[in-house]
Amino acid sequence: MPQENASSSSTGLSAQAASARRPLRIALFGFGTVGSSVARILVESKAEDVELTHIFNRNVARKRVDWTPPNVVWSEDADAVLASDVDVIVELAGGLDPAGGWVRRALEAGKSVVTANKKLIAYHGVELERLAAAKGGHLKYGAAVAGGIPVIPGIEQGLAGDRIERMEGILNGTCNFILSKMEAGAEYATVLATAQAKGYAEADPTEDVGGFDARAKLAILMRLALRVVVDPEEIVPQPITAVTAVDFSYARDLGCTIRQVARAEESGGSVAATVGPMLVDKKSPMAWSRGTENMVILTGHYGGDVVFSGHGAGGHPTAVAVVSDLLALAHGSRRVAVPSAPARIGAEFEVPHYIRFLVDDRPGIVAEITGALARERINIRAIVQKPGYPAHALPFVVTVEPCKSSALKRALASISKMDCLLEEPLDLQMLE
Amino acid sequence: MPQENASSSSTGLSAQAASARRPLRIALFGFGTVGSSVARILVESKAEDVELTHIFNRNVARKRVDWTPPNVVWSEDADAVLASDVDVIVELAGGLDPAGGWVRRALEAGKSVVTANKKLIAYHGVELERLAAAKGGHLKYGAAVAGGIPVIPGIEQGLAGDRIERMEGILNGTCNFILSKMEAGAEYATVLATAQAKGYAEADPTEDVGGFDARAKLAILMRLALRVVVDPEEIVPQPITAVTAVDFSYARDLGCTIRQVARAEESGGSVAATVGPMLVDKKSPMAWSRGTENMVILTGHYGGDVVFSGHGAGGHPTAVAVVSDLLALAHGSRRVAVPSAPARIGAEFEVPHYIRFLVDDRPGIVAEITGALARERINIRAIVQKPGYPAHALPFVVTVEPCKSSALKRALASISKMDCLLEEPLDLQMLE
Repeated sequence: MPQENASSSSTGLSAQAASARRPLRIALFGFGTVGSSVARILVESKAEDVELTHIFNRNVARKRVDWTPPNVVWSEDADAVLASDVDVIVELAGGLDPAGGWVRRALEAGKSVVTANKKLIAYHGVELERLAAAKGGHLKYGAAVAGGIPVIPGIEQGLAGDRIERMEGILNGTCNFILSKMEAGAEYATVLATAQAKGYAEADPTEDVGGFDARAKLAILMRLALRVVVDPEEIVPQPITAVTAVDFSYARDLGCTIRQVARAEESGGSVAATVGPMLVDKKSPMAWSRGTENMVILTGHYGGDVVFSGHGAGGHPTAVAVVSDLLALAHGSRRVAVPSAPARIGAEFEVPHYIRFLVDDRPGIVAEITGALARERINIRAIVQKPGYPAHALPFVVTVEPCKSSALKRALASISKMDCLLEEPLDLQMLE
Repeated sequence: MPQENASSSSTGLSAQAASARRPLRIALFGFGTVGSSVARILVESKAEDVELTHIFNRNVARKRVDWTPPNVVWSEDADAVLASDVDVIVELAGGLDPAGGWVRRALEAGKSVVTANKKLIAYHGVELERLAAAKGGHLKYGAAVAGGIPVIPGIEQGLAGDRIERMEGILNGTCNFILSKMEAGAEYATVLATAQAKGYAEADPTEDVGGFDARAKLAILMRLALRVVVDPEEIVPQPITAVTAVDFSYARDLGCTIRQVARAEESGGSVAATVGPMLVDKKSPMAWSRGTENMVILTGHYGGDVVFSGHGAGGHPTAVAVVSDLLALAHGSRRVAVPSAPARIGAEFEVPHYIRFLVDDRPGIVAEITGALARERINIRAIVQKPGYPAHALPFVVTVEPCKSSALKRALASISKMDCLLEEPLDLQMLE
């Protein structure tokens, strides 16, 4: 389309592409599941605007396939590829190092970068965007959050006119797979093993089940949607590993299920953010998500709730986001960069909570627990004790009306001193 | 951000804005619900990149408010505003005429246009985009489909890397309001009156309930997502007015509800598209939509299903889309214009159907109906006859396995000759 070329012809990058009428030259850094999907889509779609020219991977010989264009240079020499005439580095190695170094060097050289690296963007996105701007390149990372669901372009291009005040997301497919299988009756250890066998979970699943992966993605979305730049380390994640079959059973009785939710809100300049397993109403969109699906709900001051859902992970969906970013670069599309400002996680959510106790039963326990809550002026919504559990290891649940996390924490600290408690109470936020 | 200015400095429009470092000058054409919302958001957000300079409306005196910037020119002279130094016309009048003329003249003059006018874009989008390109302006219409839900930017910027093969959408808030209230037990006439009182429906509701509004939006999405340019008139809509309380009752027994759905699919170069009331599974995302909500489900060859939902209509959500388009223009963001090609609606859906008959009961009716279906080799899935209806006006339902619409149409034409039939059978597609 003529206007696309005309409109993009002034940028360093696009000037090369448009004025010489040659496609953007693309180097893939990383030829795993996502990288080979990206190559596959580029080959099959015969896009005229982008051309795959280099594939970098360690021990590249074992990665080599026969279906890429014959002129693609396969390399295990990152320096050589970075020094070549490629226009865009697609960084799919993940992690801060060495991926961060490659990205910086590419941007320093005025090249553009497309990446799926949530950690790098969560921790260094602002600095890297500044570097790209200074050197005339572009940094795009639509694949870093929610894979194939266009949440980032949706926010940047379609919701820039709103003021997003709140967001909730299911941002980690591994946790969602595990929890939705546990909802259906499976045991954590069994599901984790299945997830590992299917390639949904790493050998060390801490990054996913501990909430660190979702936290990085939340920090990215907070910058784009809430327009606050936070240190991801300030968001304290709660692992999903403390959730048991008992909790799913009690949740069901409360009309809920359990999902790993990342949530953040901004009001009056104050920011709250957290990641962890939460009770979600069976009738809410969050409960619809199954398997490795992702979902993001954004609440705008003007537009109300917008829901995005789909496949958040996997080679093909993530590759769709990468290729879309490449096409956007080739067509001269630019970020709608609304200003964001540094912020601390200083606010608390004031939401209802689910608290599950495991006790060696004796008279007076409920009175003590409810007394401790009352001293912090926390109102009880429900006390549920289901039959069928042994008295010496009795799980029961208290739900409370919206209260500050800090008040509840004090009450639980006092309750934790009771010697009948067999383990720390499990405290989960309830999403309403 | 420096790169935004640098990257957009070659376009006529952005060159003005960026090189002189002055904001884009905006003229609103139409100061109704959406127009005043746009003005409100621009005033409240204090966006530095865009400046509201003109408001055009017929009899503008009665529209005047006291909260817009003091230097805004209020005018009822479209020619004068078009001849002024505004950079962008925001067309919110709707319809083909005179709105289309204003849009053409603005584009002819090299100005850009942001519009919420689905009809204009459905019928003349391709031509207007060519005109914009030729004259150095830009045409944006994120608000034309699904109001505050960023479906259009999501497709253009985030799914360009996929090949969308199918789409289903709830694209008309009025129909969704009516049908979701009917699901809850209300009568069509009563709900329509409520919708009219609330401003959700026009005095003449044909455009909405007849499916013409959804058809225009579907045609726009088909161009962007399926990359086919169709004549909207080739899509034959089925009105929702034939749906009665009886149908909701039968639908419920089948685990379904009824929604107005716009759907299209492309396979092997052949395109199918239709709009009408359809049975949707209670467990499907479509059934979640309530009130005036919109929803779009896109199925990509690589990325699978992506779901967008939210408020598709109303002043504020639509205004969010308009302001987002304005900010995108101001930041030099360009469309990712993937090629689309003219196509005819030549294919048929092969889907299950729900057929409701209303008969003056006598022996042998079911045998005759099932015989007629058998002659077209259509397999019956279920025959449901609920008790409690009078024999002389007996509704009953047949559902059939996936079949071609044309075969079913032939069978129903033969069945319609039966003298026991009190009205034409109601034939609804079932969404699976």
